[in-house]
Amino acid sequence: MVFIIAGVSGSGKTTIGKLLSKKLELPFYDADDFHPPENVAKMAGGIPLQDEDRELWLQTLANNIKNWNSENGAILACSALKEKYREKLQGYPRQAITWILLNADYEVVLNRLSSRTDHYFKPSLLQSQFAALEIPDYGLHIDINKSKDQIIEEIMKKLEHPKSQIGLLGLGVMGKSIALNLASKEIKVSVYNRHVDRLEVDIAKNFAESNMKDHNFPWFDELKDFVDSLETPRKILLMVNAGETVDVVIKDLLPFLKKGDLIIDGGNSHYKDTRRREQDLKEIGVLFMGMGVSGGEEGALKGPSIMPGGSQEAYKRVGKIFEKIAARDVDGKPCCIHIGPDGAGHFVKMLHNGIEYGEMQLIAEIYHYLRFSIKVEPMEIADLFKKWNLEMKSYLLEISADILETKEGGGFLIDKILDAAKQKGTGGWSTNAALELGIPFDTITAAVMARNISAKKEERLKAMDLYGVSTCQENIQENFNSSELYSAYKTVSIINHAIGFDLLSEASREYEWDLDLSEIARLWTNGCIIRSAFMEDLIRIFKDRPGENILTHPEIVTYIKNTKDTLTKITSEALVSGIPIPVLSAGANYLLGYISGQTSANMIQAQRDYFGAHTYERTDKTRGEFFHTQWKPAN
Amino acid sequence: MVFIIAGVSGSGKTTIGKLLSKKLELPFYDADDFHPPENVAKMAGGIPLQDEDRELWLQTLANNIKNWNSENGAILACSALKEKYREKLQGYPRQAITWILLNADYEVVLNRLSSRTDHYFKPSLLQSQFAALEIPDYGLHIDINKSKDQIIEEIMKKLEHPKSQIGLLGLGVMGKSIALNLASKEIKVSVYNRHVDRLEVDIAKNFAESNMKDHNFPWFDELKDFVDSLETPRKILLMVNAGETVDVVIKDLLPFLKKGDLIIDGGNSHYKDTRRREQDLKEIGVLFMGMGVSGGEEGALKGPSIMPGGSQEAYKRVGKIFEKIAARDVDGKPCCIHIGPDGAGHFVKMLHNGIEYGEMQLIAEIYHYLRFSIKVEPMEIADLFKKWNLEMKSYLLEISADILETKEGGGFLIDKILDAAKQKGTGGWSTNAALELGIPFDTITAAVMARNISAKKEERLKAMDLYGVSTCQENIQENFNSSELYSAYKTVSIINHAIGFDLLSEASREYEWDLDLSEIARLWTNGCIIRSAFMEDLIRIFKDRPGENILTHPEIVTYIKNTKDTLTKITSEALVSGIPIPVLSAGANYLLGYISGQTSANMIQAQRDYFGAHTYERTDKTRGEFFHTQWKPAN
Repeated sequence: MVFIIAGVSGSGKTTIGKLLSKKLELPFYDADDFHPPENVAKMAGGIPLQDEDRELWLQTLANNIKNWNSENGAILACSALKEKYREKLQGYPRQAITWILLNADYEVVLNRLSSRTDHYFKPSLLQSQFAALEIPDYGLHIDINKSKDQIIEEIMKKLEHPKSQIGLLGLGVMGKSIALNLASKEIKVSVYNRHVDRLEVDIAKNFAESNMKDHNFPWFDELKDFVDSLETPRKILLMVNAGETVDVVIKDLLPFLKKGDLIIDGGNSHYKDTRRREQDLKEIGVLFMGMGVSGGEEGALKGPSIMPGGSQEAYKRVGKIFEKIAARDVDGKPCCIHIGPDGAGHFVKMLHNGIEYGEMQLIAEIYHYLRFSIKVEPMEIADLFKKWNLEMKSYLLEISADILETKEGGGFLIDKILDAAKQKGTGGWSTNAALELGIPFDTITAAVMARNISAKKEERLKAMDLYGVSTCQENIQENFNSSELYSAYKTVSIINHAIGFDLLSEASREYEWDLDLSEIARLWTNGCIIRSAFMEDLIRIFKDRPGENILTHPEIVTYIKNTKDTLTKITSEALVSGIPIPVLSAGANYLLGYISGQTSANMIQAQRDYFGAHTYERTDKTRGEFFHTQWKPAN
Repeated sequence: MVFIIAGVSGSGKTTIGKLLSKKLELPFYDADDFHPPENVAKMAGGIPLQDEDRELWLQTLANNIKNWNSENGAILACSALKEKYREKLQGYPRQAITWILLNADYEVVLNRLSSRTDHYFKPSLLQSQFAALEIPDYGLHIDINKSKDQIIEEIMKKLEHPKSQIGLLGLGVMGKSIALNLASKEIKVSVYNRHVDRLEVDIAKNFAESNMKDHNFPWFDELKDFVDSLETPRKILLMVNAGETVDVVIKDLLPFLKKGDLIIDGGNSHYKDTRRREQDLKEIGVLFMGMGVSGGEEGALKGPSIMPGGSQEAYKRVGKIFEKIAARDVDGKPCCIHIGPDGAGHFVKMLHNGIEYGEMQLIAEIYHYLRFSIKVEPMEIADLFKKWNLEMKSYLLEISADILETKEGGGFLIDKILDAAKQKGTGGWSTNAALELGIPFDTITAAVMARNISAKKEERLKAMDLYGVSTCQENIQENFNSSELYSAYKTVSIINHAIGFDLLSEASREYEWDLDLSEIARLWTNGCIIRSAFMEDLIRIFKDRPGENILTHPEIVTYIKNTKDTLTKITSEALVSGIPIPVLSAGANYLLGYISGQTSANMIQAQRDYFGAHTYERTDKTRGEFFHTQWKPAN
């Protein structure tokens, strides 16, 4: 193991390094001694080094670190102010390095430097050093405003009992996956799970032990010990059920926290709860982030799409950690950005799930129509989906094909699955947000409602008998045209995205979140459930025309102009064949409404004025002027 | 004016009546002196009188009251224990009578009677008198547990400054109409409106003065005086905007109220607010009711449909007043019942509005389709609607026909009305309640969303240009069949009612409200916006099969079996013609889903299990057993 003592000049790297060298019985090196002569000359002349000056020097050091590690290790004093210098030193394959950052205020260091004569560093350069310093979110952070002995003592203590960078509370499916993901990125993470007699016993312990071979998870089932195991200021990620549980956990944690600590809620909490919690905790000096995580179990493990909301200050504290564990987009950039203030992260995650509801139901309807009206076999439907997915590249379409190919015994597993789904979370919440913000939200709402009607399984079976309907109707359509069906599917998928992003746009205005829709599309291109080729397109589409409805983008207009009639045709055929297709219908109706200069709402306004004197606006007057008619002579 | 001193035997009617006779200088009569000999004999024999015994006697008294009133008036002592006796005495046309009820506990009266010898009443009959007594909610109520002089003093004071039976706070469109309705039923009502500089000035005063010819409204713009003007325990009806205003008004009122006073919120409050308010006020001993009122301005004036929710105790206090001012059903029964506890009244009103959203949009779509696709002129559409309404008897269809017939200048007024509607209240709330309770709610939700899309007027105009759509498409359908369109309309209207009542049914279970759906249908048969012939049918349909979905009633099954294919045909034709018909589509899809033994939700469950390990149930296993599949070999 190589121990690198980092920090600005004057922070005491050499002194502390030499003392530690004795203590650990390892050789001490000073990085400055490895500078090529040109650099030494520059520094002596008071000229700050440029990054290109450092290239060779850092490479030399990295080579040495590798050599030292192949022996017993070493102590190296090296300022290593920037992350990119530290990455160079880290080398590849990654070397075992313990970073020890000596921390101090500018004034403290300035005082020290002023009293030194044996060093070619000029105090005038100190400011540029402080400006350059990027404090790492890992390693040991040691405050130097104390005696040398105390500093050494603190380092030794921390080396023997190293603190974790982050704590993860709640080891359900998602919590476990995130913990493993963090550990695989060499982020030291303490894990905690509550103890509930008979129901939740030794969860944290068992998790740590079953992963002992690859990772070292400090595990806890006592909150105080868990909190004490974390670097300060603490970062605690909650992976618990949304709702009251989050409030309970926060309440339990608070006695052990200090001002400046940070709690991150990684569950699917309601954005209004997140707004409230952030506000409440701010008042007592604790930072709070609401963070959406999408990708299911596998995404959480291998790289999810991450949507953190909260203050800039909070994001600065943990952003790098989450960027490390997030999925990567096509350019290798992390699918994690600071979404916006307070509830923005959870709102965006909610909308992600809303779009997901629409896409899932859309695929399910196409499957259902193909299977029970057109009479296509599951394997053939799977082939069709795979063919379509060469262009769509939709994760949901991909897994639907997998599902259709899955057999059990002699038959298809899909036929054994009960058609009764539920909704009580993000889908309905996003509809409710749309209602509150006055945004049409047809496809997603129809998908939520479809789950509700599916849940009435017993009632449906009775109704089927009463109405004498059989599941398999016999009106097979001879002229089935799969490319028409594909157009209908793709068009409604576009509409469904337009609807979802339209609500994001309105929420951004209403809550002053300043959401970057293009960036949100980018972080949904990988790691999450609704990733697709169209999501890639949306990065550009929103960059072209920020804040505009997708359906008005020239590319989309050109496409949908060609598919609109096919969509209404397919929708009609499915309806007439007796297959419920609520999302296809909702998509078609939304489109027809959206492109109608004239809707039927003049009748609505007239009715409201008739029975309730609610007044109306006129086509021949300016907006904002209201009129009332005495519709019928009072009798 | 005739003053009738009422109360059980022994309450002191004769004594007080004679004293009052002197004070007011009016002749005194004792009703007992007008009994025919048979009655006198019965009473002397200790045999209680039956109602038929009283017929002739009451008629004689009523005739005398008329005569006395044609002179200077009189004082009459008469027990008049039951409302029906009092109504007889009141006569027709209604006589000017001031009722003075002498009130006392059973024990107090028993003591008095035991010490009397000059009277043929036997104390043993006292219990039956107390059992028969129906305390009126009008007139002067005088506690007799004090000296004669004090009693006379109190009566004189109350006669000079009579208290109002009820106070009405908030004189908007609805408040004014309700106040006039109350007054027309001879219910004495104090009116209050706040004073807001320049915006709300002298509202109460102006209202009272402009109605001085017909009614005497004590008016106030000081809360304390308003409250003091009411009989205790007070009954105060709030007719203010839903939301925070209600909380503010309650807070302002509380300092002037006493335990046992009753506040009634007659606005469109959210039922959860009503639940909260009722609970909060209960803790400080103030009764609270949330009361839905439907019928618009005209209904409120002439007889609305009234939906009061709250405790039995609260309803007992004001039920009769509201039953008096409510609309009447075909049998003459009031369209007002005690709906259920806490928020039940406001929930039911919210649902009423939800159904109204669906019906309005359905009619608007049919109009729009006829006008812009089939190319039928407004006058012809009005004729069609009137023809349909011979059977439907729908208020909304009726006013829609009126609207279509309304001309302005050379054209139709409907063409001048801007097609931009909004929603931010009961429609969206009922969708949200459906989401929370897991109930499919397609037609009503689609109607709400249709308003949201209509509100995007500017965006729609731009999109229309981009997509090159013209409002008037040219694909006129040669074979337009108005009876098919009627079937589609009627079927979706039935479905829309089924959806609304299904949510009521679920809410009743969830909140333990024990709603009587048949009675709710009955009170929606008149006075409210969604009255129709079908609502009359629903009284019977829910009586036949309480709690069952309308769509499973044999009569409805028979009808819809015949219209189902017509509905999907019409929906398809409208869609293909490019007319948005979200509610027709939602109705068709709901129906197809509801009668499907097999929906597409098995695919949804498979997808959820695939990406989130959410598990599924199986068709070949019992409900409540959950399964998970490793869908694809982990790679």
